[in-house]
Amino acid sequence: MDSPKIPVIYDTDPGIDDALALALLAAHPRFDLVAITSVHGNASVDLTSRNAQGLAALFKLDIPVAVGAAGPLLDSRRRDGALHVHGDDALGGIAHQLPKPTRPADPRPAHQLICDLVNERPGELTLVAVGPFTNLALALRQDPGIAGKVKQVVVMGGAFGLKGHSGNVSPVAEANIMADPEAADEVLTAPWPVIVVGLDVTQEVIMREADLARLCGRGDGAGDLLWQATRHYQKFYDARDSIGGIYAHDASAAAVLLVPEAFTLRRGPVRVALEGIATGQTIQDWRGEQSQPTPWTGHPAQQVCVAVDAPKVLALFDEIF
Amino acid sequence: MDSPKIPVIYDTDPGIDDALALALLAAHPRFDLVAITSVHGNASVDLTSRNAQGLAALFKLDIPVAVGAAGPLLDSRRRDGALHVHGDDALGGIAHQLPKPTRPADPRPAHQLICDLVNERPGELTLVAVGPFTNLALALRQDPGIAGKVKQVVVMGGAFGLKGHSGNVSPVAEANIMADPEAADEVLTAPWPVIVVGLDVTQEVIMREADLARLCGRGDGAGDLLWQATRHYQKFYDARDSIGGIYAHDASAAAVLLVPEAFTLRRGPVRVALEGIATGQTIQDWRGEQSQPTPWTGHPAQQVCVAVDAPKVLALFDEIF
Repeated sequence: MDSPKIPVIYDTDPGIDDALALALLAAHPRFDLVAITSVHGNASVDLTSRNAQGLAALFKLDIPVAVGAAGPLLDSRRRDGALHVHGDDALGGIAHQLPKPTRPADPRPAHQLICDLVNERPGELTLVAVGPFTNLALALRQDPGIAGKVKQVVVMGGAFGLKGHSGNVSPVAEANIMADPEAADEVLTAPWPVIVVGLDVTQEVIMREADLARLCGRGDGAGDLLWQATRHYQKFYDARDSIGGIYAHDASAAAVLLVPEAFTLRRGPVRVALEGIATGQTIQDWRGEQSQPTPWTGHPAQQVCVAVDAPKVLALFDEIF
Repeated sequence: MDSPKIPVIYDTDPGIDDALALALLAAHPRFDLVAITSVHGNASVDLTSRNAQGLAALFKLDIPVAVGAAGPLLDSRRRDGALHVHGDDALGGIAHQLPKPTRPADPRPAHQLICDLVNERPGELTLVAVGPFTNLALALRQDPGIAGKVKQVVVMGGAFGLKGHSGNVSPVAEANIMADPEAADEVLTAPWPVIVVGLDVTQEVIMREADLARLCGRGDGAGDLLWQATRHYQKFYDARDSIGGIYAHDASAAAVLLVPEAFTLRRGPVRVALEGIATGQTIQDWRGEQSQPTPWTGHPAQQVCVAVDAPKVLALFDEIF
């Protein structure tokens, strides 16, 4: 018996590892990608939107691509992107090789498209969000009712300090959260089921150069472009962490849906530190009922990934194209 | 060749595990305990001071015992003690069996005594602080010059999230830090060398019931009282963590000085979160030089214990009495 397809809205700030995750979402037979929404993050939303449209064309996706938030909920949180990681075009220099978009951007802002699609298909859609969570927070603010109508939310973001993994933009904060901590706190405490895929696991999912090279010659040119795009990204990580490859941060979020058995989850409310030196830190309370109310009390228990069987995740790239 | 004795000032809020640490500091041949200073924390400073004096008499110590701060630097930080952990007398019900103090409390406040002793013996003294760090912060405020005259500071406090260890009074905060986070931040960023012995290692140093029972009949009655005192403490931890014994939190701080080879240290500035849901969290930046200034920039690299060889620590209790 075939498993049913998983209909997904992909909220993204491409970004090189965003493009790899999109390859899974677009080309893996288990996914039914319904829409793409762009957001600020790795680069300006102008650039990430252009990249999202070009990647949609590359993967021959005839689906809505909507432009999302240009910055965080609070303007004071505005940060530089991560072009030093992703290259000047945020795609490691391959953006100009992407095909022309086959359809114009959806006229609705990203959060509106999310609300519309979720309301059209209550209980069916999964949101996979791999950039700052501004679009999701705006969608929740506009229509809190969508929280009860989304099937599942999977986010790449956060760091929980496990196995020595810590933040990548402060000792405790991960970039997607730091780029809009208020949005992250709203998304993680909303009454919908969230799986949080943080650095603790994504930094275990290393696509080595040989894994990446296997993409070449596949996907009708898409594989070659992904390989090329990762050259810049790998250079950054090799210089910093000597891993001989790249972290498949965003692809890990897509993978949770395909191979949930590869991930160990820990249950408990998650809040985001919004003040002081810990700003942007994700903190889960998995201690259970406390005698006194705490900032976690009354918030829904979410699932944080605390361990991963990386080969199971990496094997998914052999199932596409 | 005998190793030289280590002259120590012990800043403490006894407290049952404080009493066990004092047993090491008072009775191990390698220590030369110079003074005891009391502080609020596990109980009111009235109670911890009385306990400190009684314990000094029990261990036949003829040294100054000075009364320290009754509360944190900021009154708004005032918290209840931990009598549910340590019992109504903070010593598991044995306080009334302690001998009468053999000398009155030192007339000086604790921080003054610390300043005086350090200035009298520059470069010689080690501070072992196992309660909230209010006395040490007050000493630094009164005479910042002592930072350059203390040989070593060892503190029990903090939690760095390693191996799943996290806070004991919030998901990220440890009790000694939470009881006076401003003092902790001042002490950890002062220009003196600090070894931080946090929950990450102290929760690995479990004295099991059989270890504790071996104290009985030793130390001219002191061992029996320690065993009795730990009955309450063990009941608390057995109910919560099912460890069949107790965490030797404070004794681990003393142990660092005797068996440094039992501890793995990680170097980097340590700050304390003072705001929001992370308040009381100790955060170390071990990433080295950053391109942009951070809250850790310019602060001295301290040593955080990240792993411990627990049997080496526990064996120290066979070397006393």
